[in-house]
Amino acid sequence: MQLLFRYNWQVRDEWFQLLKRLPEEELIRERVGGIGSFLRTLHHIVDVEQAWILLALQQLPGSHYKFEDYKNLDAIERLSNSCRTEVEKFVNSWSNELEENILDDFTFGEIMRHVIAHEIHHIGQLSVWIRELGFDPASANVIGRGLHSNGKH
Amino acid sequence: MQLLFRYNWQVRDEWFQLLKRLPEEELIRERVGGIGSFLRTLHHIVDVEQAWILLALQQLPGSHYKFEDYKNLDAIERLSNSCRTEVEKFVNSWSNELEENILDDFTFGEIMRHVIAHEIHHIGQLSVWIRELGFDPASANVIGRGLHSNGKH
Repeated sequence: MQLLFRYNWQVRDEWFQLLKRLPEEELIRERVGGIGSFLRTLHHIVDVEQAWILLALQQLPGSHYKFEDYKNLDAIERLSNSCRTEVEKFVNSWSNELEENILDDFTFGEIMRHVIAHEIHHIGQLSVWIRELGFDPASANVIGRGLHSNGKH
Repeated sequence: MQLLFRYNWQVRDEWFQLLKRLPEEELIRERVGGIGSFLRTLHHIVDVEQAWILLALQQLPGSHYKFEDYKNLDAIERLSNSCRTEVEKFVNSWSNELEENILDDFTFGEIMRHVIAHEIHHIGQLSVWIRELGFDPASANVIGRGLHSNGKH
């Protein structure tokens, strides 16, 4: 479970670095698919993760983050880092006993995997957009990242 | 582990159904990103999964499937179904004791998650292409698919 979260965070950070090479207008340009621009899609990835893991699964105080408050790459990266600190605590403390817990009609296990797949799917969309701009995307490989090193799968 | 494989197979089947609505020329048209067309990308998804799970992890006899031998949607769907029968046996018999087995420099656990993420990433690319054609993609949601029903996570 933890491995694919670590994968998503590593890949997300690579995208933040990669997108720093693009001019601002390309980051905000409306595109087909995803949430409509690089920035909106990244913001959405960060927000959906924290909303499921912090607000929904743990019922922590908080709310969705509005894109209008995080309209540049640096702001979204800072939001990502601050949310991750909290999300990581839950992910690292995950145990199989939580799998069958229920929230609404879903098990916690389904929701955790929903969050994982959600980010990978959107990153796939970014990879098309960046190729259209003539850049290589961050690698989508799970292997070769040393993700198995801490023994949490 | 099994849940995200079942997710990928369900989503993949939805894509096969969806793409039957497109004219042949849109399926073979070269596009930016992925493996360059709907058909090549779907073929690649199927082939990479069987190559890792059957050839690499289990060292079963076989080889990569050449795109040239499966150049239409029906042929790729049939290939997907026949490969899945074999892949499913391994996925369903997966147990945590296999996590730390090593193939080359990678653990089996890393490789299984690599296969999962590989398909989700490519499906994200297809979702941009199909929106460009004015169609809605298959849902990328993990929740709401009844995937937790058989107790395998």
